[in-house]
Amino acid sequence: MATRTYPEFSTKYPLLLKTIMKRPVAIYPNEIGIVYRNQVTGRYQRFTWNEWYRRTCRLANALKKLGVRAGVPGEPGDRIGTMALNTHRHMELYYAVPCIGAVLHCVNVRLSLEHIVYTIQHAEDEVLFFDDMLLPLVEAIYDRVKDKVKAFVYMADGTQLPTTKIAPLYAYEALLEAADDDFAWPDLHEDTNATLCYTTATTGLPKGAMFTHRALYLQTVHLIALANFSNDPTTARLGENAVPMIITPLFHIHGWCQPFAFVFGAHKIVLPGTFTVDGFCELVQTEKVTNASVVPTILALLLEYKDLDKYDLSSLVGLGVGGGALPLGLKEKIEARIPGARAGSGYGMTETAPATVISFVKKYMRDWPKEKLDAVRVKTGLPVLGMEVEVVDGQGNCVPHDGKTIGQIVVRGPWVMEKYYKNPEKTAEVWYDGWFHTGDLATVDEEGFLAIVDRVSDLIRSGSEMVPTVLLENLAAMAEFVLEAAVVGVPDPVWGQKALAIIKLVPGSGKNENDLIAFLKAEGVDKGKITKWMLPKLVAIVDEIPKTSVGKFSKRHIRDDIERFLAKAVVIKEA
Amino acid sequence: MATRTYPEFSTKYPLLLKTIMKRPVAIYPNEIGIVYRNQVTGRYQRFTWNEWYRRTCRLANALKKLGVRAGVPGEPGDRIGTMALNTHRHMELYYAVPCIGAVLHCVNVRLSLEHIVYTIQHAEDEVLFFDDMLLPLVEAIYDRVKDKVKAFVYMADGTQLPTTKIAPLYAYEALLEAADDDFAWPDLHEDTNATLCYTTATTGLPKGAMFTHRALYLQTVHLIALANFSNDPTTARLGENAVPMIITPLFHIHGWCQPFAFVFGAHKIVLPGTFTVDGFCELVQTEKVTNASVVPTILALLLEYKDLDKYDLSSLVGLGVGGGALPLGLKEKIEARIPGARAGSGYGMTETAPATVISFVKKYMRDWPKEKLDAVRVKTGLPVLGMEVEVVDGQGNCVPHDGKTIGQIVVRGPWVMEKYYKNPEKTAEVWYDGWFHTGDLATVDEEGFLAIVDRVSDLIRSGSEMVPTVLLENLAAMAEFVLEAAVVGVPDPVWGQKALAIIKLVPGSGKNENDLIAFLKAEGVDKGKITKWMLPKLVAIVDEIPKTSVGKFSKRHIRDDIERFLAKAVVIKEA
Repeated sequence: MATRTYPEFSTKYPLLLKTIMKRPVAIYPNEIGIVYRNQVTGRYQRFTWNEWYRRTCRLANALKKLGVRAGVPGEPGDRIGTMALNTHRHMELYYAVPCIGAVLHCVNVRLSLEHIVYTIQHAEDEVLFFDDMLLPLVEAIYDRVKDKVKAFVYMADGTQLPTTKIAPLYAYEALLEAADDDFAWPDLHEDTNATLCYTTATTGLPKGAMFTHRALYLQTVHLIALANFSNDPTTARLGENAVPMIITPLFHIHGWCQPFAFVFGAHKIVLPGTFTVDGFCELVQTEKVTNASVVPTILALLLEYKDLDKYDLSSLVGLGVGGGALPLGLKEKIEARIPGARAGSGYGMTETAPATVISFVKKYMRDWPKEKLDAVRVKTGLPVLGMEVEVVDGQGNCVPHDGKTIGQIVVRGPWVMEKYYKNPEKTAEVWYDGWFHTGDLATVDEEGFLAIVDRVSDLIRSGSEMVPTVLLENLAAMAEFVLEAAVVGVPDPVWGQKALAIIKLVPGSGKNENDLIAFLKAEGVDKGKITKWMLPKLVAIVDEIPKTSVGKFSKRHIRDDIERFLAKAVVIKEA
Repeated sequence: MATRTYPEFSTKYPLLLKTIMKRPVAIYPNEIGIVYRNQVTGRYQRFTWNEWYRRTCRLANALKKLGVRAGVPGEPGDRIGTMALNTHRHMELYYAVPCIGAVLHCVNVRLSLEHIVYTIQHAEDEVLFFDDMLLPLVEAIYDRVKDKVKAFVYMADGTQLPTTKIAPLYAYEALLEAADDDFAWPDLHEDTNATLCYTTATTGLPKGAMFTHRALYLQTVHLIALANFSNDPTTARLGENAVPMIITPLFHIHGWCQPFAFVFGAHKIVLPGTFTVDGFCELVQTEKVTNASVVPTILALLLEYKDLDKYDLSSLVGLGVGGGALPLGLKEKIEARIPGARAGSGYGMTETAPATVISFVKKYMRDWPKEKLDAVRVKTGLPVLGMEVEVVDGQGNCVPHDGKTIGQIVVRGPWVMEKYYKNPEKTAEVWYDGWFHTGDLATVDEEGFLAIVDRVSDLIRSGSEMVPTVLLENLAAMAEFVLEAAVVGVPDPVWGQKALAIIKLVPGSGKNENDLIAFLKAEGVDKGKITKWMLPKLVAIVDEIPKTSVGKFSKRHIRDDIERFLAKAVVIKEA
């Protein structure tokens, strides 16, 4: 008798995004799953999980009709580009594209035109989906991508198409209307490629990182599991009743994994299109949003917003902060303005999908006083469950866990990118000795907590010493009168480099450059957090600090424009 | 330039039990991780995570010295048998054996001698570890296993060996003393076999189910993630501060995955050796135990225990019930006796590692009144995250979700056994049409909740109708005067079979057979939960109901001894 076993349905059951997609429609078919507010019109659209799933099935059928081909391990399926904000349609693409075996390439529309064109050409996108409001952008790049892209899809509420040179052009809603609302999702191999994300390229060209179904599935389930270990007594535990708003752009490293984690969790997901302070506040109030993940800049924008107190933001309990360190000062300010909300930090990068290190409270800290606990919470944190993270010196040895010695963060784990897409040279620069080298610098304390101090490329070398800019930035942000602070190195004839602090003040604070130095002395030098020679030698007060496309301080733009900042800078005599 | 990428450290990073093992020692090296109370001497032993990890390293070195060989996918490593209770040493074996690449075979010491010998012979155990208190048992089987087993290891507190015919015999503590306390754990392939569990064999011989590192790792991380989705407002959320006691024997289906989930969660794990009511109560009081998973019988034992109120059990918040349905009556009784504790149900089997279906509260039920919620909580539940579970008719079609139609539970998912070890015939009986067939019967209601009604083999066929025995048992257990209730079919000249209810009364209740029938009529027939023809035609009141080695009602033993029960049975006239 021939005995057939089923490894593919048992111990080798593939880890696929379709398993994530199918959970909410199985458990909560008639509950609202997706709420989208158009930030231009203010119009709301709401979809039950069944409606979202049916639309996703229709989209899958439409993609097959467009001739989109599936991949196999090692041979990616067709790349499907998206130029879209955080909309319900983008959330449909997030599942339909990978679950038919194709590769989702979310184009970072905040890159320069040059880089946008480069990533579409490099990815060789076969189809490009774009939001109606991004039509001018697509028209601007059309001539340089039209040879490869064989179909464009216009995403708007109706089935009408605009008058444009773009061709062939399809209307998203017309494609869905014409398609069947059921789809037999294939049993892909778990190593099939699912997504392609490009770095924001602080130097050089964007690099592509491709991820498999397995990698994204494992990241998702580990992040959810890790949340269960949380010991923080002030963290509200809402189960599936949490209502998250995805503010992180969906084109930015899988929206920090939120589109996967929140669908698996069957939460009501709130999508704001793009972030605006009033849109954010309105959505929190209307949808009773409980959680949001943001870059530090967004917290600063909220603090600046004069109408903040007009909204009922009392439902908000959790603010995850990534894409930059969470200064204690900023944490305290936002928690004072939005009582009940708790801010925690995290760290990751495109190549790590991104979850790597996350704020954590150890179980024996549960009863610590708030001040002591807050000092733990603003540390970058501990390695994410399932991920190996170490901080090493130039020889690859772990630095001592003393909270002082700086080393480079290296990682490995199930959702670290295997290689840059079509770029073996850059791959070899980051993957060696069995570790992925992040290029980020950190210390590790006695308890194992990492604290990011800088990018390798941003570190200021002053004499034989190194000035970690993030440390100074976090310290400066603790001052009540400081809204944002960036520190960069500028040439110095004696020391090689010296620190320039660029500061945005709280409006009406009436403070000046010397007040900053006085604060850094009192809170930093006198309390042993920094040494005297680390103090900035120059301070510039500005109205705006340049940011990258994802809201981090853009040190590259600051350096490109350094003469302008130096012109505004005041030389600190005694420092 | 040769470009080396690292698939084994990135997207193909293996899912191994060593990742689970290493988490607590990395985060909580100096916290108490394992507490073991010897149920005979009452002596406590406590180990920090570092101490546990170091002992596990020593054990790994000792195993290598004994010549234990690692496996590769498809070719299991040496099988290492354990005959042990829930001790700290057993928890060391749980990690050292699989993490060196060998296969852990926890012998179910509650099986018959015949079956114990059979499983050791069938597994071809190379080494056999056993507890000092099980020496007589090992001596009793020695002659029949000595040819294959090449080393025996005696597990006691000292390094002394007993006088015995067993040879070659090593002392566990002497092996550890002689071994190095560091070990370079290999990077195994995730499909390497890790464990071998035998079924308890309600009919025929025990069958072996082998599990891979990947399967066990995925079960663990999914179970932890699922706990995070919990919406039950009365469920205490303690994070890593939960203090679980593992009562489920470690030789029973990976102790229901608890040795993996609780190590990953770095909880303080309390081990009672074997379950005794006084030992349980003392440990809860001393160690502030918060959670325990039990078979229904143990709840009945606690309810019977006259000294229960002398202990402070207030730390206890969660009681997971598996290995049998959780009757609402039993849930209510135990929650009344241990205020603060909440009992929930689950379902699984050896072949599914075991997590399959678990009690769940949907998010919109959060504010339901207690009575309505309790009715949900005692349902067997929803499929465990990551697992596909369906209930099908004889043609493999899903039964309607009406809460009435009975079908067989079929499952597939990452931790379902691929095949019975060396048993293609039995494999073919359960694995066909792409599903593992459990042999258990259930209904599915409109909300997708499964309710187990019976084993296929236990179902009573009365005329053309089927009497689900578990339904009757659960209903009977709701009576205040009923402590335990088992229902079996006995021959009937007219109907083919009829139902015999075997009842253990609450001591001093003063109730009789007709009171049971009156209760079943009032609560069952009159309320539409059962039909009149389902009522037992015979009722026997007994002092003890036979149980299997894992504490379930043993219908096989009841049937084997049916004359004795029929002799005690009272014929119910009007039923």
